[in-house]
Amino acid sequence: NKRNLLNSGSIMAGLVKSDTEDFIDWWQHTVFYQIYPRSFMDSNGDGIGDLKGITSKLRYLADTGITATWLSPIFQSPMVDFGYDISDYKAIQPEYGTMADFEELIDTAFELGIKVVLDFVPNHSSDQHEWFKKSASREPGYEDFYVWHDGIVQKNGTRVPPNNWPSVFYGSAWKWHEGREQYYLHQFTKEQPDLNFRNPKVVQAMDDVLLFWLNKGVAGFRIDAVNHLFEDESLKDEPLSGKTGDSLSYDYTEHIYSRDLPEVLEMIHHWRQLLDDFSAKHPERPTRIMMTEAYAGLTQLADYYEDSNGVRGSHLPFNFHFITDVTGDSDARDYVYNVEKWLIYMPRGHAANWVMGNHDNPRVASRFGPASVDAMNMLLLTLPGVAVTYNGEELGMVDYRELSWEDTVDPPARNVGEELYQEVSRDPVRTPFQWSNETNAGFSTATKTWLPVHPNYLELNLEAQKVANRSHYHVYKDLLELRKSAIMRVGRFNIEPLTRWVFAFKRSYPNFESIITVINVSDKEQLVDLSEFLSHPKKLVVEVSGVDSKYQPGQSLAASALLLAAREGLVCRLV
Amino acid sequence: NKRNLLNSGSIMAGLVKSDTEDFIDWWQHTVFYQIYPRSFMDSNGDGIGDLKGITSKLRYLADTGITATWLSPIFQSPMVDFGYDISDYKAIQPEYGTMADFEELIDTAFELGIKVVLDFVPNHSSDQHEWFKKSASREPGYEDFYVWHDGIVQKNGTRVPPNNWPSVFYGSAWKWHEGREQYYLHQFTKEQPDLNFRNPKVVQAMDDVLLFWLNKGVAGFRIDAVNHLFEDESLKDEPLSGKTGDSLSYDYTEHIYSRDLPEVLEMIHHWRQLLDDFSAKHPERPTRIMMTEAYAGLTQLADYYEDSNGVRGSHLPFNFHFITDVTGDSDARDYVYNVEKWLIYMPRGHAANWVMGNHDNPRVASRFGPASVDAMNMLLLTLPGVAVTYNGEELGMVDYRELSWEDTVDPPARNVGEELYQEVSRDPVRTPFQWSNETNAGFSTATKTWLPVHPNYLELNLEAQKVANRSHYHVYKDLLELRKSAIMRVGRFNIEPLTRWVFAFKRSYPNFESIITVINVSDKEQLVDLSEFLSHPKKLVVEVSGVDSKYQPGQSLAASALLLAAREGLVCRLV
Ligand SMILES: [Ca+2]
Ligand SMILES: [Ca+2]
Repeated sequence: NKRNLLNSGSIMAGLVKSDTEDFIDWWQHTVFYQIYPRSFMDSNGDGIGDLKGITSKLRYLADTGITATWLSPIFQSPMVDFGYDISDYKAIQPEYGTMADFEELIDTAFELGIKVVLDFVPNHSSDQHEWFKKSASREPGYEDFYVWHDGIVQKNGTRVPPNNWPSVFYGSAWKWHEGREQYYLHQFTKEQPDLNFRNPKVVQAMDDVLLFWLNKGVAGFRIDAVNHLFEDESLKDEPLSGKTGDSLSYDYTEHIYSRDLPEVLEMIHHWRQLLDDFSAKHPERPTRIMMTEAYAGLTQLADYYEDSNGVRGSHLPFNFHFITDVTGDSDARDYVYNVEKWLIYMPRGHAANWVMGNHDNPRVASRFGPASVDAMNMLLLTLPGVAVTYNGEELGMVDYRELSWEDTVDPPARNVGEELYQEVSRDPVRTPFQWSNETNAGFSTATKTWLPVHPNYLELNLEAQKVANRSHYHVYKDLLELRKSAIMRVGRFNIEPLTRWVFAFKRSYPNFESIITVINVSDKEQLVDLSEFLSHPKKLVVEVSGVDSKYQPGQSLAASALLLAAREGLVCRLV
Repeated sequence: NKRNLLNSGSIMAGLVKSDTEDFIDWWQHTVFYQIYPRSFMDSNGDGIGDLKGITSKLRYLADTGITATWLSPIFQSPMVDFGYDISDYKAIQPEYGTMADFEELIDTAFELGIKVVLDFVPNHSSDQHEWFKKSASREPGYEDFYVWHDGIVQKNGTRVPPNNWPSVFYGSAWKWHEGREQYYLHQFTKEQPDLNFRNPKVVQAMDDVLLFWLNKGVAGFRIDAVNHLFEDESLKDEPLSGKTGDSLSYDYTEHIYSRDLPEVLEMIHHWRQLLDDFSAKHPERPTRIMMTEAYAGLTQLADYYEDSNGVRGSHLPFNFHFITDVTGDSDARDYVYNVEKWLIYMPRGHAANWVMGNHDNPRVASRFGPASVDAMNMLLLTLPGVAVTYNGEELGMVDYRELSWEDTVDPPARNVGEELYQEVSRDPVRTPFQWSNETNAGFSTATKTWLPVHPNYLELNLEAQKVANRSHYHVYKDLLELRKSAIMRVGRFNIEPLTRWVFAFKRSYPNFESIITVINVSDKEQLVDLSEFLSHPKKLVVEVSGVDSKYQPGQSLAASALLLAAREGLVCRLV
C-alpha cells in the first residue's frame, strides 16, 4: 500500500520545501528507547540500576542518535511486580534514587535534546499504597477507591467471590480482605488491587499524579494495561472460552466484562485532553504525549488513535505485532501482512508505530536468531512512523535463558517452580546492560548484581562494538542517522513480498532519492529480482548492510539479481 | 500494495507492446459467470431449468460480455442435495436433458467464445451410485471404495460409531449400513457417502470421469469441498472446540483429522497434472483449468495456488472473503484489508480471484443492501485478476426471503422446521432468473416452477433493465467492456482507505491512462479528497457510474473534492 506516513497536505507541502521539521511533531517519527532502570546502569555499587546511572548514560543515548526514552516504573514500590505495583505515585523508589536525582535526569536529558516518558500504571496500585489502606479501613472519601464486593454466600454458608473472573496471573481475580471483610478485585497479582475508575475521586487523584510529573518536565506517559481499567458494573460471570478446563487460568473465560470496555476510550480521551491542555499552557517544552499498552484487537487500537467520531486519543497505541504475530518461522508474506494490516486500520493522519521488543518478551536475537539482529533493526527503523527499541537491542543482546533457579526473581517464574521456570521467566530479557568487558559488564561494581550479567558479555558489549569495524551497534547508529533524512520522515511507503522468503519496501517521493529495504527471512541464501518492484530500476547503492554482509556501504548493486545471505537485510538508495 | 496482477517480466513487456493477449491466458482475467441450471431457463415447461434453456441463453452471456461460465451440477442425481449427490458421474440428470443436449450446449458455447466449466464433486457420491451399492455388498474391487468401519462395541454391548466426528450437516458423520453391517463415513448428508481417496481405484475412477468430460470439450472443473477429501487413517477422535456443547453440531470438534489434510494438496497436484497433460495433448481448445472450493485458511489456499516447493495446483482457489469477511456494516478499512491480505499471501505470478456470490449465500442486494449493487460490481470487476459472478447479480436480484414454508425445498431449511427455516434457507438465493415481466419472469411456461419467482420480477427483470436508460445491467455490461482494456488486464494495483468509509484503488502503468475506482461503503454522503492518493492529480473523467448517480459517464470531476452519495461507487479515468 503506497501512502504517506501522515496523510496531510501540509506535510507534502513540507517536502516540496525540503524542510519537514515544521510539519512533523517530534513524536511522529522518533525512536523511543525503552530503559529498564533496574538493569541499565548502577551508580552506587549496590547491584541495582538507578537514576544516577541512567543520567550518566544519557550522553550514550544522544551519541547514538536517540532523542526519546521511556522508563519502566521508577516509583516507590514493594517490587512484587518490579515496580508495576506502586505504593506512592509521586515518590521515587529509594533503590533508584531521590527526587533530586530525577530532576537532574530530566534536566540533563533536556540539555541533550532527549524527551523522557514515564511509565504510568493506573489500573492498580500496590496493596501497600495509602489509598488502599484507607479504603480497606473505610476511611471517608476512600471507601470506593477500589472495587469491593461482599461476595456470594452459598446455601452451605460458604462465601465465594462475586464471579468467575480469573486474574491475568492465575487464580481468582478476587481476594478476601480480612480487615474490611469484603473481596477486592485484582486483575493482576493479589498485591495489585484494581483502582475504581468509576469513582471521580480516583480519576482526580490520577490527574493529579499526571500533572505532578508533567510539572517536573516529562514528555508524557506510557500507560500500562490500559484496556483493563474498567469492569462491567453488574460484575456478571464471564462466558467460558472453551480453551481450558482450568477455572484458575486467565484463558478460562472470555473477558467481555473485565477488559476492553467502552469506558476505556473515554478515559484515554480524558487524559489526551489533559496532555493537550498542559502542552498548550506550557509550550516551552515539546508536545506531551501518551503511548498506551494494550494487547488488543486491531480495530480497537485504531480507535485509540481516533474514534469513529474523529476524537483523538492515544498518540501511539503500541503495535506489538512484530512480537506477537511474527516468529523466526514467519515467511515474507507474514511480515508484509503484519505491516499492511496496521497501516490499513490506523486512521488517516496518524503516525504508525512498531515495537520490536520490551521487558516482557524474548529479545530479537532469541526470537529470530542472532543472524537476524541487523535485519530486524533495519525493518524497525526504516518503516514509516515511530520505532520502539528495548535497551540492549542495539547491541543484539541475547536472552540469558540458562539463568539458574537460585538467581531467578521474576514472580511468574518463581510461581511455576524449578522445573518450568525457564520457559516463562522474564529475567533472561532483563539482565544488566552490557557496557564493556569489565566486571559485571561495566554495569555495576557490586559483588553480586540483582540479576546476573549474561556470560557472553566478554565478547558482546558496547565498547567492543564501538571499536569494531562493523558491529550491530554501528548498523543501529547508521540507521538512526539515515532516519533524519526527509525521505525517511515523510516518504511514501510501498511494501511487497518479492518471493516467499524475501520482502522489500520503498520510501519514495517524487524528485527525492528512494530508500529501499530488502530482507531475507529464511535460513537460506536467496536470489531476488527487484527490477519489477522498482518499476524503473536505476542504480542501487548500499546505504546500510549487516555485520556479516558481503556488501559494503557505497557499493553499487544490480536490482535484477540481488543475492541475499540467510537472514540478511539491506538498506539501499535508488539513485 | 502496488504490484502487477501477474508478476512476470513477460507481461510487462506485453504492455509495452500494447498487446497483452499473448501474455495472459484466458482464465487469468476472465469473469466466471456461475449458472444455477435448475433456475436459469426452462425450455420444456416443466418448471425446472435445463440444458436447452441454458443453451438458448448463451447468446445473452455473449452479448453481456461473458466469456466463461461454470455450471452447478448437471449430473444424474436423486437431488437430495440438489445435484451435489451424484449417482452417475457420466450421465446428465434427466430433468436437465440428454447428453446430446449437453453436446449442443458445449458446441454453441464454443461458437460464441464461451468456456464451460463443470462442477466436479469428488468427496462423496450419492448412496444411489452403483459404486456405493457394490461397495455395500462387498463386490470384489469395490470393497474399499468408501470409508467403512465396524464401529466400537461398548462394554454394555452397544455398538457406536468409530469416533466423535460430526457431519457438516449436523449429526454423526457415521451411518450404520444394515446390509454390510458396518458404518460408513459421510461428511455431508447420510445420502452422500465419502469416497475413499486412499484407494487408487477411486482416484483412477475419478480421473476417468474428468477425462470423460474433458473429451466432451469442457474448459475445466470447479472442484467441490476439496478440503474434505481425506481423513486421518487412525480415525482418531477430534479435540473439542469448546464452541458448543452439542456433540451433533459440526462446530463441536476441531476438524484436524477430517479436513485440510496434507494429502488434499497431493490430489490437487495430481488433477493439475491431468489437466495440463490434457491441454498439451489437445491444444485446439483453450487451457483447461480447475477452480477449487474450500472455506479454508489463507495460507492453505495460497498453497493450493503453489506450494512452498513451487509446485502449482489449483488455477483459482476460490476467494470467498467478500462473502465471509465483509458485511453491510464493514468500513473502508475492512475492504482494503480483505483485498490486501489475498494479494499478500497469493504466491507471486498467480491470478487473484474474487467471488462476490454463489448459490449458498445471500445475494449482494440482500447482504449489502440494494443501493450497493453497482458499487459491489465495480469492486468485483475492476480489481486485478478473475471475477466470479453468480447469475442474476448483474441485475441486482434480491433474495426472496419471504418464500413460504410450503414452497421451501432446501434440505437444511426443511430440517430446522417452520419456525427457523427462513434464516438458514438457501432457496431465497436460488429463485428463477428474472428475464422479463412475462409469466414466471420469462423463466418457464409452467403453472408452477420448482421454486417460486421473486414477486419483484415485474419491475426487476432483464428486459426492463435493457430498455432503461440506466440500470444495474448496463453498469455491469459497461464494466465488462472496460475490463477488455490493457490497463485492466495487467495494470499495477494500489488500494487505500481514504477515510473510514471511502476507499479507492488504482490500476496504472507508465504511459497508460490509469483507472480509479472509488467506493463509499457508508449510508451517508461522503466528501473525499483524492488528490493525495493520485499523487499528481490530473483530470478525472467518469467511466462508469451507478444507476442513481448524479455523475454521468464522460463528466469531468475535481479530484480534490469528490462528493459520493451513500453506497456510491464510481469508476474514473485519470487523463
Ligand atoms: Ca544502584
Ligand atoms: Ca425443464
